Amino acid sequence: MNFKSAVVILAVLLQGYAGFAQTSTAVAEDFKPSSVTQPGKQYPQVNSEGRVRVRIAAPNAQKVQLDIGGVRYDLIKDEKGIWTGESAPQVEGFHYYQLNIDGAAVPDPGSIYFYGASRWGSGIEIPAPDQEFYALKDVPHGLVSQKIYFSKITNSWRRCFVYTPPGYDATNKTRYPVLYLQHGSGEDETGWSAQGKANLIIDNLLAEQKTVPMIIVMDNGYATRASSAQKEVNTQPTGIGAFNAFEDVLIKEIIPMIDASYKTIADREHRAMAGLSMGANQTIQITMNNPDKFASIAGFSGTSNYPSTAPIDAATFMNGKFKDGSAFNKQVKLFWLGLGTKEPNPFPGSVAAFRSMLDKQGIKYSYYESQGTAHEWLTWRRCLHEFAQLLFK
Amino acid sequence: MNFKSAVVILAVLLQGYAGFAQTSTAVAEDFKPSSVTQPGKQYPQVNSEGRVRVRIAAPNAQKVQLDIGGVRYDLIKDEKGIWTGESAPQVEGFHYYQLNIDGAAVPDPGSIYFYGASRWGSGIEIPAPDQEFYALKDVPHGLVSQKIYFSKITNSWRRCFVYTPPGYDATNKTRYPVLYLQHGSGEDETGWSAQGKANLIIDNLLAEQKTVPMIIVMDNGYATRASSAQKEVNTQPTGIGAFNAFEDVLIKEIIPMIDASYKTIADREHRAMAGLSMGANQTIQITMNNPDKFASIAGFSGTSNYPSTAPIDAATFMNGKFKDGSAFNKQVKLFWLGLGTKEPNPFPGSVAAFRSMLDKQGIKYSYYESQGTAHEWLTWRRCLHEFAQLLFK
Repeated sequence: MNFKSAVVILAVLLQGYAGFAQTSTAVAEDFKPSSVTQPGKQYPQVNSEGRVRVRIAAPNAQKVQLDIGGVRYDLIKDEKGIWTGESAPQVEGFHYYQLNIDGAAVPDPGSIYFYGASRWGSGIEIPAPDQEFYALKDVPHGLVSQKIYFSKITNSWRRCFVYTPPGYDATNKTRYPVLYLQHGSGEDETGWSAQGKANLIIDNLLAEQKTVPMIIVMDNGYATRASSAQKEVNTQPTGIGAFNAFEDVLIKEIIPMIDASYKTIADREHRAMAGLSMGANQTIQITMNNPDKFASIAGFSGTSNYPSTAPIDAATFMNGKFKDGSAFNKQVKLFWLGLGTKEPNPFPGSVAAFRSMLDKQGIKYSYYESQGTAHEWLTWRRCLHEFAQLLFK
Repeated sequence: MNFKSAVVILAVLLQGYAGFAQTSTAVAEDFKPSSVTQPGKQYPQVNSEGRVRVRIAAPNAQKVQLDIGGVRYDLIKDEKGIWTGESAPQVEGFHYYQLNIDGAAVPDPGSIYFYGASRWGSGIEIPAPDQEFYALKDVPHGLVSQKIYFSKITNSWRRCFVYTPPGYDATNKTRYPVLYLQHGSGEDETGWSAQGKANLIIDNLLAEQKTVPMIIVMDNGYATRASSAQKEVNTQPTGIGAFNAFEDVLIKEIIPMIDASYKTIADREHRAMAGLSMGANQTIQITMNNPDKFASIAGFSGTSNYPSTAPIDAATFMNGKFKDGSAFNKQVKLFWLGLGTKEPNPFPGSVAAFRSMLDKQGIKYSYYESQGTAHEWLTWRRCLHEFAQLLFK
């Protein structure tokens, strides 16, 4: 064995120990209950390094693990049968997770539950340095209302959540612009107010006079035509399925319903659409198909060429919707794209290819990068925060 | 061994087999996913007998149980490590439950989650013969809005959900009466719209013209004064703690806020309060202390003598608030009590003692019994359904 081999082996050995060292000695013992820990419960906790610590009584279990960020961390059992353990440091932001008890993947009984990753389950919040912009503060707060409606197109009950800003009430006649704001794949209409904190972001921006009062409609991006839709739905969200009918549902049912029941300014100049990931793809498709309906458009962590990273030919892409750059610039008041710097493939390549096409066509757009965040809700909160400061101005 | 002993032993043996027989042969195989099964999932299921069947993959577990109604039912493992099993028939209505995996009590990953029993966790709906009155139907639907507010009394952020009826919108000037509707012990402000289906009950009654359009405010009955309150709260409900400050919060903060921001008729004749269990106790206390604020009062499965079942001396009970029956009858427009026929002690005795006192004082009140239901949400849905037909008329 030469010196170089010995170094490699030593390095591998040290790497092998790193996990043990992290969980037994090197962990900062400043864990606190998370902002999404259930009231009255002590776990899950998060420390200053962004580690997630969970604890659960499972006296007869053989193996208990914390499953977060694609990694399973073994918990350690004490003499009372209580298992405790923590993850490696997590990227700041919001992460779905679960526990694994002798092979059973279950929600952590200590956390609040969110709909994402195509299921209701646990989520954890790793505090971000800029968390003030989405914090619950002593400023006027708008309402988030659940609106139930029947869709003839899908032959099913659906619901949306509607944010109305502070001051929107029955006693004044002010009318407001509307942002239609869509979730991503495996999520539903609850995402933008629960994980996304859209209402708090806008409340805070309004208090600082950095945005204008607006109505935000958060609906479910999944919609299938009546023939394939289930005949009965419950009042809970339906996050599963295809979305071939969503454009029709939005244009023919949701927008007319919102314009009829809220004090909206019902023209394209005062109507915007934005979405994240799958919702960004939908946003670009729908707004390009309906230029008479929307003048402002945003895609957070997604574009309509997804998942392709290949160069785009504007002459043929989306039937030439981006072909005439100067016509596009006249038609679209605000075209906005955002992306996290730590997003996985194919997002960086896919969004880059889309931007190259825009640049080549001379299309004006805003581009924002969220530093240090992945394909998750902190990226999208920041995107909304930035986008809203330019919107309807 | 004599004949009698042999019979007793045989009976014990048969009893021992009864459980086995129930789960292996006598179960009606007409299980269907429940109305509270997560979208896209197949379990939990309920059959025509009201049995709950759950299924979970736990390949390395020793023992998996369904824990419902105070009984734990063993699940059976197949060759793939998937555990399946069902409960005995459950009383119709809504029941909290959990799974137990090698001693760990966890939510069922297949169900939607509810706040009750002082935790977010699994719940199951056993269909009731009269479920139409709280079903999601093709009738006009009101909104349920989340309103966040800061309480100076508790020095904390709180939230309520506010139901506004169909037709309540920004474009008309109609003003509405208000019902303040409270949850029970271990529950929170989410209960009446999630488990209670208060919005659907009123929507359906309005469609049949059996009640009048009203605003319903559903707040959190737990409130502690600033000295003992936590300094920071998150946007999720806080269902833990005492409620010594709730009367003050309701009278000094919530009611003025609602009257300022909704189109209410802000007088006692058009303001009611109702609650279930702990909320019923609070309702009677608060309305009796504030006769200038409320003219209509309802207690569902609870009265203010709880948990006592002893005869009540009206001269001293609650400082003599029920002493003068004729004055009470002039002051209170509607006094309404309800109870399920299968409620556990001390509710039947406690409510009976309270009613005896009312009868003795010549106090007029309505009394309703929900047939075959226990201390759970079907009783309370039925109570709201009955009470709302008499309210504000």
